[in-house]
Amino acid sequence: MSIEHASAEGTPKEEIAARIDGLKRLMAKSGVDFSIIVQHVDLFYFTGSAQKGTLVVPVDGEPLYFVLRSVGRARAETSLPVIEAKSDRDMAKTLRAKGVLKGKGGMELDVVPVAVFRRLKDLMGLDDVADVSDPIKELRIVKSPFEIEQVRRSGAICDAVFVEAPLVIKEGVSEVEIDAALVAAGRRSGHQGLLRMRGLNQEMMNLYVTAGESGTVASAGDVPIAGLGVTAAVAQGSSLHRVQRSIPVLVDYGGGYNGYITDETRAFVVGRLDETFRKPYEVAREIIEDAQAFGKEGVDTTAIYDRAYAMAKKAGLEQHFMGFGPERVSFIGHGLGLEINELPVITGRHKRTLVEGNVFAFEPKFVFPGKGAVGIEVDFIARKDRLERVTRTPIDLVEL
Amino acid sequence: MSIEHASAEGTPKEEIAARIDGLKRLMAKSGVDFSIIVQHVDLFYFTGSAQKGTLVVPVDGEPLYFVLRSVGRARAETSLPVIEAKSDRDMAKTLRAKGVLKGKGGMELDVVPVAVFRRLKDLMGLDDVADVSDPIKELRIVKSPFEIEQVRRSGAICDAVFVEAPLVIKEGVSEVEIDAALVAAGRRSGHQGLLRMRGLNQEMMNLYVTAGESGTVASAGDVPIAGLGVTAAVAQGSSLHRVQRSIPVLVDYGGGYNGYITDETRAFVVGRLDETFRKPYEVAREIIEDAQAFGKEGVDTTAIYDRAYAMAKKAGLEQHFMGFGPERVSFIGHGLGLEINELPVITGRHKRTLVEGNVFAFEPKFVFPGKGAVGIEVDFIARKDRLERVTRTPIDLVEL
Repeated sequence: MSIEHASAEGTPKEEIAARIDGLKRLMAKSGVDFSIIVQHVDLFYFTGSAQKGTLVVPVDGEPLYFVLRSVGRARAETSLPVIEAKSDRDMAKTLRAKGVLKGKGGMELDVVPVAVFRRLKDLMGLDDVADVSDPIKELRIVKSPFEIEQVRRSGAICDAVFVEAPLVIKEGVSEVEIDAALVAAGRRSGHQGLLRMRGLNQEMMNLYVTAGESGTVASAGDVPIAGLGVTAAVAQGSSLHRVQRSIPVLVDYGGGYNGYITDETRAFVVGRLDETFRKPYEVAREIIEDAQAFGKEGVDTTAIYDRAYAMAKKAGLEQHFMGFGPERVSFIGHGLGLEINELPVITGRHKRTLVEGNVFAFEPKFVFPGKGAVGIEVDFIARKDRLERVTRTPIDLVEL
Repeated sequence: MSIEHASAEGTPKEEIAARIDGLKRLMAKSGVDFSIIVQHVDLFYFTGSAQKGTLVVPVDGEPLYFVLRSVGRARAETSLPVIEAKSDRDMAKTLRAKGVLKGKGGMELDVVPVAVFRRLKDLMGLDDVADVSDPIKELRIVKSPFEIEQVRRSGAICDAVFVEAPLVIKEGVSEVEIDAALVAAGRRSGHQGLLRMRGLNQEMMNLYVTAGESGTVASAGDVPIAGLGVTAAVAQGSSLHRVQRSIPVLVDYGGGYNGYITDETRAFVVGRLDETFRKPYEVAREIIEDAQAFGKEGVDTTAIYDRAYAMAKKAGLEQHFMGFGPERVSFIGHGLGLEINELPVITGRHKRTLVEGNVFAFEPKFVFPGKGAVGIEVDFIARKDRLERVTRTPIDLVEL
């Protein structure tokens, strides 16, 4: 079977070359002589393949891509030469023989477990190892036109799910039933099957349906609305809670296409929206419209957050903004790409200037304990002169 | 909203106490004075809650469970006292004040990233830190009656999916379409939404549908049949390949209930099974029946593997057994629990004696490049006198 049978386009050769050049540039800046990349998402970014292996990038030499499994698959997926390795020991031997491991090494210390790190360090005889996760994140924050195209296709899966949502949201139906139907709709529309979130204990499902109080229970995740879930073991996501008349149903869905994640939320209601949520919903909409009119390359992300917060405050909703009370989160948006928690973070805390090609989710949401939650989430692509929406689905509340 | 609304039963107090006592016993054996547990699956195992926090277990004192987020949710879920912490710094201060951090510390070095490890080490002023992941795995290998009950409920979700499968598998239908329908069926039957696999780059989808050649393409994962997937970014899982008459369709599904994972495979075929697969299917069935008659407490896992391999070899199928040629994997079974890659591993390489309460998936599978794959996977609970099946679905090939 031809591996090209997989539906999504391979990463173009020039794209891979540009990314590796970018990494080398940032390595040179921070005095790193060689990087050792082992996390599969970073491997996919720099090679076009997520097979089991290691990419070694010398600051002034050609990248060496070692693959343990599957070599055949990696060869079909990457434009880089693939070096077949029997083991990490085998790889270390080759690297030593080539004299690549001189000077200061770099690894993804934000995700590489201590045991893996120590084993590689010993095998390779490394001494000084810097963390190259920040340079990698910096590089990944700007999406190329090829990447933007993948993001758009990912967004089209969100659109397909939002079209289906009004057909399955009904009074008395449980969140999990809606979840089952819409995740299936997304998969049939080309969803890759799973989403990724970087870091220890970070995990995401494809969909979060919250239909009232279940959307008000905070959980481990640094998110405004986590959902109750069906077990303390996976304490997030859709629950057995059922749709009630007048209480908003939030459908928070993550598209996934060729690795690229989108993340949007729409609000639905059976009957007339309860008064509690009417104004918050309108404020969420105004915050999105304001950000879209205000944001563009050169704008600072803290200014976007501050404007949103000011609008929530002016409406007297600051205690309900992005969670409730002490469990509010400090951001209103997060970068998107191969992982759902990329840069930039849209928060009042860290300044960062938007540049063309940044992609982020923007999610004004309001939480009312004992009642429910309401809000909207859209994805934006930063352009020279504007913020561009990723999906086509209007942000209107859908009354059923 | 009451957090108890989540459907699954909380972990009983006595269960938590026994697990922590077990950890202390193994810590004492390996000279660890205090363990610092941060991975969410281990946290759930030892506390009953997977909230963001840290469990510190002194070898001769009461466990200290610090929670950052959400404190309310953790309090509702765990039977341990919850210590609210504003930050890890705050926690470290409390620990130092209590004098807990004396002697040799232990952490889950197989999963804790270097950056997290260094930060905690610095905050807590730790010096010598051992890896306590092996003791934790040893402890988790024996499932209590409460855990077995969760495994059974997880298995019931597999049964529900296998009942639905014949209704959606039809000639010309794509793997992804079957996947969408069956994952939805599983979710409606109580699936927790995601599955967990321990370690860097380890990830699982709930379902793998392979309908011929797509099941013969090896990928990064150490599994006999990974699936082609729909993108190199997520190079596993169901693909756009379509069901063909006479070619087996494997439905490899992972149940998930209250954290506990089951993992079973059934074979389906539209029309009469192609001759290539008839004998391999029968050998897979015989291997399962043989293992079930042979296995029980006291039996060595290598003996189970060796018998299976001998049966495959006798049938002249050894090159197709558990993959093909150089991409064959070295095991025929893997432990199940809160993660899909627990102990015991059923392989010819590492001896381990089965004890009552071990739970593992057993999956004789055969791969024929260019044609397809066939096999069966069932989950077993080791008992004093037998191996007990987890699910009720027969292992017969289903002809449609």
